[in-house]
Amino acid sequence: TQTFRILVLPGDHVGPEVMAEALKVLDVVEECRPNLKFERTFDLVGGSSIDKHGVPVTEEVLDKASKSDAVLFGSVGGPEWANASPNPEAGILGLRHKLDAFANLRPCEILVPSLLEASPLKPDIVKGTKFIVVRENCGGAYFGDKVEKPEVASDLWVYEPREVERCARVSAAVAKILGKKGDGKGGGGPATVWSADKANVLASGRLWRRVTEDVFKREFPDIELRHQLADSMAMLMVKNPRGFNGVIHTDNTFGDILSDISGGIVGSLGTLPSASISGIPGEGRCNGIYEPVHGSAPDIAGKNLVNPVAQILSLAMLLRYSCVLVDEAVAIEKAVERVFDSKEAGGLGIRTKDMGGDAGTKEAGDAIASEV
Amino acid sequence: TQTFRILVLPGDHVGPEVMAEALKVLDVVEECRPNLKFERTFDLVGGSSIDKHGVPVTEEVLDKASKSDAVLFGSVGGPEWANASPNPEAGILGLRHKLDAFANLRPCEILVPSLLEASPLKPDIVKGTKFIVVRENCGGAYFGDKVEKPEVASDLWVYEPREVERCARVSAAVAKILGKKGDGKGGGGPATVWSADKANVLASGRLWRRVTEDVFKREFPDIELRHQLADSMAMLMVKNPRGFNGVIHTDNTFGDILSDISGGIVGSLGTLPSASISGIPGEGRCNGIYEPVHGSAPDIAGKNLVNPVAQILSLAMLLRYSCVLVDEAVAIEKAVERVFDSKEAGGLGIRTKDMGGDAGTKEAGDAIASEV
Ligand SMILES: CC(C)[C@H](C(=O)O)[C@@H](O)C(=O)O
Ligand SMILES: CC(C)[C@H](C(=O)O)[C@@H](O)C(=O)O
Repeated sequence: TQTFRILVLPGDHVGPEVMAEALKVLDVVEECRPNLKFERTFDLVGGSSIDKHGVPVTEEVLDKASKSDAVLFGSVGGPEWANASPNPEAGILGLRHKLDAFANLRPCEILVPSLLEASPLKPDIVKGTKFIVVRENCGGAYFGDKVEKPEVASDLWVYEPREVERCARVSAAVAKILGKKGDGKGGGGPATVWSADKANVLASGRLWRRVTEDVFKREFPDIELRHQLADSMAMLMVKNPRGFNGVIHTDNTFGDILSDISGGIVGSLGTLPSASISGIPGEGRCNGIYEPVHGSAPDIAGKNLVNPVAQILSLAMLLRYSCVLVDEAVAIEKAVERVFDSKEAGGLGIRTKDMGGDAGTKEAGDAIASEV
Repeated sequence: TQTFRILVLPGDHVGPEVMAEALKVLDVVEECRPNLKFERTFDLVGGSSIDKHGVPVTEEVLDKASKSDAVLFGSVGGPEWANASPNPEAGILGLRHKLDAFANLRPCEILVPSLLEASPLKPDIVKGTKFIVVRENCGGAYFGDKVEKPEVASDLWVYEPREVERCARVSAAVAKILGKKGDGKGGGGPATVWSADKANVLASGRLWRRVTEDVFKREFPDIELRHQLADSMAMLMVKNPRGFNGVIHTDNTFGDILSDISGGIVGSLGTLPSASISGIPGEGRCNGIYEPVHGSAPDIAGKNLVNPVAQILSLAMLLRYSCVLVDEAVAIEKAVERVFDSKEAGGLGIRTKDMGGDAGTKEAGDAIASEV
């Protein structure tokens, strides 16, 4: 029997709602695989931690996180804590830092053809889009030294080669797994890696480009690496998202923005998962934080309206990257697709409101759990 | 007779081609308005300046720029100078700095209904989109102190209140001119201002938000100001661009990316102008740099293929902001619309290839000049 210790941090507002559905799915995985055990520990993070402990994440929780095999994270924040300092989001940053979860993976794809309608883009433009953003997650401007005085404020956008190197290795590993065909099994050889920076303006951008180039030349000569300025990347992602099928490799700030453009492309954040990992995929187990890209959505919290899919797919990523349970991950991903897809296309056509359906959070979660 | 001194810097590759068309239009303005004189001085910038002088912009050109009433700029760069240091783009940054052209204005709109096809977005999503990005242009990470060593590289993302204040005043002025109706005459009262930052992570972002808030409360209580995190702004701009009709007020880095998303939304950079101004619109003449958003497009240079419209509309912005010649600016904008619009809609249907037409650069320029 393999045992995995999972720290579950539901967070605020819709966080606990979507978490409940993901845990149903984890129950099913456990039932179907008697040799796998998932020990779950629950704790507070974000606003709910601020209310109880005065900080968005306690030292104790950080310790529990680093002793776990993985952290399943809901979402944090809300108007109640608009003026809190530190704010609920500092809880996420604290966890990323503690676990040194340096690579943030955000897949962007239209899960099933019948979901093309949800995209603001024309179907023939967006059809077949499938890329994964690999964002450096523990460095750059978001973690550099800060000065905060009334007369001046600054953030140091700083990188050392070591930080770019390890992120480049993750991007390369993801490109091999994803494959040119996008089948997740390396079909067609490694996918193209698009590195985004502002090497024309930023010193940190020139370091990013040089180190990335070196790592790929030296260690992955068979992977196609292309450089793109981050601003024009933003433009082209909207104009022709399929053009970036493969892996987008970028720093913390640009990755933050470019990965949210993905959300714009698919039309809803409700289906987009993310993984923040501390090791190289394919090199064994590593700790990580798995969370939906969407926030805590206070406006729809408690109404059984929120889409649980992003959280459920985050669980699938947890199984894939932290537990190296690839079949189990694929089973969940396939179940989501079947539940989502229209009846005409052989699916169940069960969707929450954000995707144009009328299913509730629980109903969608139940359907996915029973499909798994 | 009013005389305006214009420094003309065509730059590299397609730069001189589009510049020639804009100057044709300026000739027409001069013919129709005998009391206006535009004294033109020509000089080098970017790669062509590197080739001749070893630097992308000489001190002499910077001096000429600051003694001019406005700078009409083409575009710079190309593979020939990929390894030049400083690079051609440093010429733009040098000019912005010299003129203290602290506010970069980038309008985003679909000029005529029949151009909706060119957008990657569904027509009902993008229809009616009309906003102007006001990007802080002389501060932040792109101008902060740089460290560039093999073992570490950094850029200081720094703001002082003064820099945010003056940019907020430009955003407010633009909101008043644009108007809620987007008619450019303040129709319906001042447009909404959307301020984008990462106040949840960046110290500079918190300063941005606080100072912006203060300026609007104190000086423009009648203008609606909304704050938005820059990442979710990127997502929402794709999902529902009309939702930001009005003014997007943001810092140098986020403005760089968000304004390029505009290019994605309209589907081509070929029609998008920009202005980098050194004063507050509505408070009289001020120096500025006017340039297309697109780059020097080496692949299509010299082939009579490039769309001259972005350069021509940049000239219109020059007349509006640096010369306070509003009627003349409007005349050019209207001429562009008539030339562009389909015959069914009462236009001439003359478009370059990037917009699905078959007109050449010169033909399009001639048509616009004669419409003016
Ligand atoms: C909440 C915030 C700190 C975080 C970030 O900017 O990294 C979020 O926007 C994200 O993208 O995960
Ligand atoms: C060329 C470059 C220096 C410039 C910038 O980043 O400011 C350009 O991308 C722009 O947006 O005007």
